[in-house]
Amino acid sequence: MEQKSEWRSHGGRQQVWTHASSATGTDMTFSIFLPEGEGPFPLITYLSGLTCTHANVTEKGEFREAAARLGLAILAPDTSPRGSDVADDPAYDLGQGAGFYVDATEAPWAPHFRMWSYITEELPALAAAHFPLDMARQGITGHSMGGHGALTMALRHPGRYRAVSAFAPIVAPSQVPWGEKALAAYLGPDKTLWAAHDAVALIDAGARLPDLLVDVGDADSFLQPQLKPELLRAACDTAGIPLTLNLRPGYDHSYYFISSFMTSHLEWHAARLG
Amino acid sequence: MEQKSEWRSHGGRQQVWTHASSATGTDMTFSIFLPEGEGPFPLITYLSGLTCTHANVTEKGEFREAAARLGLAILAPDTSPRGSDVADDPAYDLGQGAGFYVDATEAPWAPHFRMWSYITEELPALAAAHFPLDMARQGITGHSMGGHGALTMALRHPGRYRAVSAFAPIVAPSQVPWGEKALAAYLGPDKTLWAAHDAVALIDAGARLPDLLVDVGDADSFLQPQLKPELLRAACDTAGIPLTLNLRPGYDHSYYFISSFMTSHLEWHAARLG
Repeated sequence: MEQKSEWRSHGGRQQVWTHASSATGTDMTFSIFLPEGEGPFPLITYLSGLTCTHANVTEKGEFREAAARLGLAILAPDTSPRGSDVADDPAYDLGQGAGFYVDATEAPWAPHFRMWSYITEELPALAAAHFPLDMARQGITGHSMGGHGALTMALRHPGRYRAVSAFAPIVAPSQVPWGEKALAAYLGPDKTLWAAHDAVALIDAGARLPDLLVDVGDADSFLQPQLKPELLRAACDTAGIPLTLNLRPGYDHSYYFISSFMTSHLEWHAARLG
Repeated sequence: MEQKSEWRSHGGRQQVWTHASSATGTDMTFSIFLPEGEGPFPLITYLSGLTCTHANVTEKGEFREAAARLGLAILAPDTSPRGSDVADDPAYDLGQGAGFYVDATEAPWAPHFRMWSYITEELPALAAAHFPLDMARQGITGHSMGGHGALTMALRHPGRYRAVSAFAPIVAPSQVPWGEKALAAYLGPDKTLWAAHDAVALIDAGARLPDLLVDVGDADSFLQPQLKPELLRAACDTAGIPLTLNLRPGYDHSYYFISSFMTSHLEWHAARLG
């Protein structure tokens, strides 16, 4: 692990690190905010959306005031492996910057696009070893494609993430253009294999969360046909999962939206992490 | 005036506008945040530092939560005229992105580099005509070169800015390398002409403020020889200007520093603007 930078901010430390990842076979970069004090701190993992790196939320997410006040560490990974020897696609919604938080099985993606293993196994182990974190108190959240990652990881790891939320998430990738394109590319055409990476399908198949907070802007240009929060609403209602779904009037898909509700999400997480 | 973008954020509206400026003879871009409601809102002008545009503070300043809560409009201009027909210099600290908030008198800068007139006359008149602002309740602040601009503008317009603060400001440009280079280029070699654009010199010559808030990081790599807050401390003490000068341990010159203390600055302004 190599520390690339550190800034003092809101009484804590905002750091950026790079390390050689065994999961992706590439160097990976992440940011972590550590509040003031010795810890161990509860850890919130924030997964970013299409085209983003760790930097977008780190610079524009406005999470540090609340994280410092609530004593939360915030971990922000990249959205895919990157590099000139890593497969890519000219489209913004496939390849580098668009890992979709799966372990790819298809060519040319399979060798490096292993974001599921990276985020659920390698990165938490690395973070636990290097930072003063209380890994028994973890939350997960994310934006758009990262909201998809947060929901699927929480649904498939019962008890690991004691607080789960999302900003404008993709909730049913098997049923929307972004997801159909990416899951077909990374996992192949057999849609039965996609269900493990589809929050609505996981809930329909019996996966559960204690509760869930989702914010979406009603002026989000991706609301239809990509996000479709009504599918999550229906699945949670049927499953009996308490879903707080806030449709925010006038808000779009940008960090101006995310930052507006970041504090309320971190307060949701803190209340559940004790 | 042409509106380039608008985002709903923190209950208000974050907008970016472009207009043909008579002061600079170029198109100029600024951002403005308007809180929820009808107004008229008190107006805080934030002047940015070297290399910045309106975008840096708009994206990274973390001002909207406090501005929305306190009912303040936030105006963020660019730092110079720009364009392929505008004089420039390859250095980061002269020319485009480095207007130093003066009206240049020297070639090749004089035709367009008129940021003093733009910020003190043209832009406030334009803003007052287009937005629901209470121009009797104005504050001004800024960062680094923009802190220099905020201090000199407030000192030379007694009563206009009822609240004044700065983040890591250049306080005595006549005495530090950044200022010596820029003022010589823009105003010529006669240092007596620089005093009108030097906060410490203005205070020494009798200009006054009711009070003043300044935050500077003690890990700011520009603290010496560029910022020298001790010169402002001495000038204010001699002049009897109440200066709250916070030397913040471990903070640098970045927006991670600015955003950490933005809320406390806006609360300072709100308390003085009623």
